[in-house]
Amino acid sequence: MKLASLNDGTRDGKLVVVSKDITRYCAADNIAPTMQYALDNWDEVAPKLDALYRDVEHQTVPCERFHEREAHSPLPRAYQWADGSAYINHVELVRKARGAEVPESFYHDPLMYQGGSDDFLPPRGDIPLKDTAWGCDMEGEIACITDDVPMGTSPEDAAGHIKLLMLVNDVSLRGLIPGELAKGFGFFQSKPATAFSPVAVTPDELGDAWQNSVIAHPLKVDYNGEPFGRAEVAEDATFNLADLVSHAAKTRNLGAGAIIGSGTISNKGEDGGPGKPVSEGGAGYSCIAEIRMIETIYDGEPKTRFMAPGDTVRIWMDDEHGHSIFGAIEQKVVQA
Amino acid sequence: MKLASLNDGTRDGKLVVVSKDITRYCAADNIAPTMQYALDNWDEVAPKLDALYRDVEHQTVPCERFHEREAHSPLPRAYQWADGSAYINHVELVRKARGAEVPESFYHDPLMYQGGSDDFLPPRGDIPLKDTAWGCDMEGEIACITDDVPMGTSPEDAAGHIKLLMLVNDVSLRGLIPGELAKGFGFFQSKPATAFSPVAVTPDELGDAWQNSVIAHPLKVDYNGEPFGRAEVAEDATFNLADLVSHAAKTRNLGAGAIIGSGTISNKGEDGGPGKPVSEGGAGYSCIAEIRMIETIYDGEPKTRFMAPGDTVRIWMDDEHGHSIFGAIEQKVVQA
Repeated sequence: MKLASLNDGTRDGKLVVVSKDITRYCAADNIAPTMQYALDNWDEVAPKLDALYRDVEHQTVPCERFHEREAHSPLPRAYQWADGSAYINHVELVRKARGAEVPESFYHDPLMYQGGSDDFLPPRGDIPLKDTAWGCDMEGEIACITDDVPMGTSPEDAAGHIKLLMLVNDVSLRGLIPGELAKGFGFFQSKPATAFSPVAVTPDELGDAWQNSVIAHPLKVDYNGEPFGRAEVAEDATFNLADLVSHAAKTRNLGAGAIIGSGTISNKGEDGGPGKPVSEGGAGYSCIAEIRMIETIYDGEPKTRFMAPGDTVRIWMDDEHGHSIFGAIEQKVVQA
Repeated sequence: MKLASLNDGTRDGKLVVVSKDITRYCAADNIAPTMQYALDNWDEVAPKLDALYRDVEHQTVPCERFHEREAHSPLPRAYQWADGSAYINHVELVRKARGAEVPESFYHDPLMYQGGSDDFLPPRGDIPLKDTAWGCDMEGEIACITDDVPMGTSPEDAAGHIKLLMLVNDVSLRGLIPGELAKGFGFFQSKPATAFSPVAVTPDELGDAWQNSVIAHPLKVDYNGEPFGRAEVAEDATFNLADLVSHAAKTRNLGAGAIIGSGTISNKGEDGGPGKPVSEGGAGYSCIAEIRMIETIYDGEPKTRFMAPGDTVRIWMDDEHGHSIFGAIEQKVVQA
């Protein structure tokens, strides 16, 4: 099934069930007022939502027109947002651009940072930026939402705790990252508010494309209206979402509604080296930092600048028939 | 006023107003069902809660006996938990123990890490530990809860967004920290579930002891029933809570109910050097790591071990009359 949180003026929005083609919705607030409520009571609530979804699909309930621009992020705020870095190709490029090796441990011990979850951006919300020197970047990713995950859950068991999937724009301020990493406490100011896709879907919606806790479709990223990224999510993933959920739950429980992200989707080139731009037939990039690293590797310095007020990014995913699965994140950077 | 969330079997508990001497409570759920609801609607709700608090104090409403053991952390789960490191003495000791300098920037740019907020421990909840090699430690701290804080709020304006104050046990797994910091993404598995004091109080409850967004009382820490820490919260604080709130809001909004912590309270010794244990007339320590660093500085190696199953910690704060302000965090480490 497909779910969304419509902006009704409240902090958490109104839960609705969305049709498979994401053109219609039916309010679900008689079953669960909010997405968080649904996740808090998933075993009881999910079958009822699923029955309503079937009614929506069969057009046996009255529906309204679904406008993606009216949706919050599926969880407008969450109790947990942790983002992995499953695509080590991305890390390899960062390191290669500065002449450093990737530690061997990175291939079996996931990188993960704790994100702020109290104030997500809507999928069509502007990205407020105070200072272009902060180096604003998009990061196109996938993420899952879990139910309650007990401490110590294995990757095998973690897969069953993945209840919903979304797309992510993990906005990053590249100019603030070196200073923060040098302090040793990880990202904080360099990771401002994140946006998620208008629609969250259960894994069964992906059919055969849900494989081993990754999604076998390309993540599509357009930057200022031009194709920028078409990276295959199922390729070059050193860790899948279940691995990352298990990592996050190693020393503590995860509460229902925890969001765990994949990190920037990143494919190697055909020869195993840096990937080519979409315009040259490659899979492109899911963030600007990556093309800058490739420019640095080839030309000694980056030439693509980071995002400035007026720049736009669109992140979405089509199924095998070319139909949008999650709706699109569409954001414009604005001067804050 | 003083507020608590009683464990009524729900995820968020039941909001109650607690008497100043924390012996009695009156349910506030006709005003606000949960602490988060109160914070979401603070301007409207706080005056009503305050009126009820006066009735509780004047014994003009029926009250029940308040048992600290029945309280959740004031926010059993939160949308934001970020912890600073305001007591640079603590950082100086860490660095001194390994022969490193403290960067000058640490004195004007706060250290802060993003914590997990989806599954806090109750104030009397056991600390589950899988492996003693993980190096379980307590960290005694203070924290504030804010209302909505807009991006870019100055330290001066941030002070007005501090609505409630609590004590914290920021449980840390010291054995996992070096590996995580080496990865560069900051703390994650090394910061398991945190516990807060049974009661949260408005700043005015502190009277003259609320000074410049810090609390002019010692934080009391007993370890296995012996006095371990009596550090003065208002001494050696390089940053106050308003500074830390402003830091957290530099590049993003903070949502209502955001919890911002001080980091481990840590005093210098009388001579400006490492502080002495309580048993030797000093202010002692708010975490085990600190006494281990001092042992390392003086003896070349630590001799106090980290916490193991059966060890207990008690963290509380008394007012000038010796009355407990927030109730006590009392936790025992148990094998998970």
